[in-house]
Amino acid sequence: MPLHFTSEQRLDDGVLERAFTLGEIPGILWTPASAPAPLVLLGHPPLGLHKMYPRLVARARRAAADGFAAATIELPGSGDRPRWAAAEQARANLRQVMEAGEPVSDEIVDALILPLVDKAVPEWQAALDALLSLPEIGGPVGYSGGVISIGVRLAVVEPRIVAAGFFAGSFVPRAIFEEARQVTIPLHVLLQWDDEGNDRQAALALFDAFGSKEKSLHANMGGHTGVPQFAGDAAAQFFTRHLK
Amino acid sequence: MPLHFTSEQRLDDGVLERAFTLGEIPGILWTPASAPAPLVLLGHPPLGLHKMYPRLVARARRAAADGFAAATIELPGSGDRPRWAAAEQARANLRQVMEAGEPVSDEIVDALILPLVDKAVPEWQAALDALLSLPEIGGPVGYSGGVISIGVRLAVVEPRIVAAGFFAGSFVPRAIFEEARQVTIPLHVLLQWDDEGNDRQAALALFDAFGSKEKSLHANMGGHTGVPQFAGDAAAQFFTRHLK
Repeated sequence: MPLHFTSEQRLDDGVLERAFTLGEIPGILWTPASAPAPLVLLGHPPLGLHKMYPRLVARARRAAADGFAAATIELPGSGDRPRWAAAEQARANLRQVMEAGEPVSDEIVDALILPLVDKAVPEWQAALDALLSLPEIGGPVGYSGGVISIGVRLAVVEPRIVAAGFFAGSFVPRAIFEEARQVTIPLHVLLQWDDEGNDRQAALALFDAFGSKEKSLHANMGGHTGVPQFAGDAAAQFFTRHLK
Repeated sequence: MPLHFTSEQRLDDGVLERAFTLGEIPGILWTPASAPAPLVLLGHPPLGLHKMYPRLVARARRAAADGFAAATIELPGSGDRPRWAAAEQARANLRQVMEAGEPVSDEIVDALILPLVDKAVPEWQAALDALLSLPEIGGPVGYSGGVISIGVRLAVVEPRIVAAGFFAGSFVPRAIFEEARQVTIPLHVLLQWDDEGNDRQAALALFDAFGSKEKSLHANMGGHTGVPQFAGDAAAQFFTRHLK
């Protein structure tokens, strides 16, 4: 799929931010002054790039300060991309059981996550094809954050990704636990210990399942969005160790 | 109790290592060139300072490189200190049930750990009194590693300790879990995820119990003595954040 740049701006710290489309998928690429740079793919929850922009650009600036390019693409069914009836239905089902205080069944989790993973992963791989053909992007490639099930699948199927930083979240299908055993790249997993929206035992079990010989779990206090500054520093050091 | 230096040597990196006695308790103090320096107390398992020396001096050199003095004292009943019948009996009981593959009862854990904590903690506090009166030692003070129950008690009762790095180990008496809830200083807890000699669930429960608003758990692979270099770096950064 061809990548077309649609706009560009130079941020105050010298980072070049360019919006692009990859076929019909919108995306953003941030590049530091030093080129060619290793690449960090910035995962994110399915809330739309526009809504996620402030957190994404902060992560991209940090990556650029460490000498990395960073890129992200819109997830299927999010942002300006066409809605998708099955995904909308799955989200509605989830809301319904959560509002009723009922347990979230495996069926609901599977319907919510697995089709998203199946659609998103080939798109991130297509983005990688296009991004790695740019002269300002070298290798190696890391994947960071976002829907952890997408990250797990990418870590299994995409050999160009050599290290991954995950944000432990709940709603991981059983099938993804099985895939986690096949992950062998170095992993850095953040867990917010008192994250109300997160099943801590499931997160610990997923960490345990990863097949990687080098895997680190960093648990911190502060709720879902309260990841402390020093935890971000540690994640950045992880990528510096593995992408440089 | 008066502190007497009994020998000194300058290590090749410029760190001054001095053996001392505090009453009848042997200890070692390492100081960097820069003075006065904050102090990190180096905890250790009850295997004797002589046996632990290679690991202790490595930790002390690292602390000195970060601008910290480091000190340690022999634990009661270890090294050249008088044996102590009840402790010997408790260790023999532990060995017996472990060799028989039986579960380690609360009674055995209590007998093994609580008297050690009761005896050791006032000694570490006396060492602090003496060390902080030296012109080359400033504050603040951190406590690092060793028998985690001693660290927990120290963190509760000793206000001069402002941050602690613990190495998660099993054999924590129920009473220490209760004390853990009273700990409020920043904590950095290392857990070796696949440590055969360690009860992972107990370690996670103890981490959960700590009352501290800032607490981080860093879990890594590699077995009990296989703490990766980067985990040591992260612990050093924790002390740099809190003692400088």
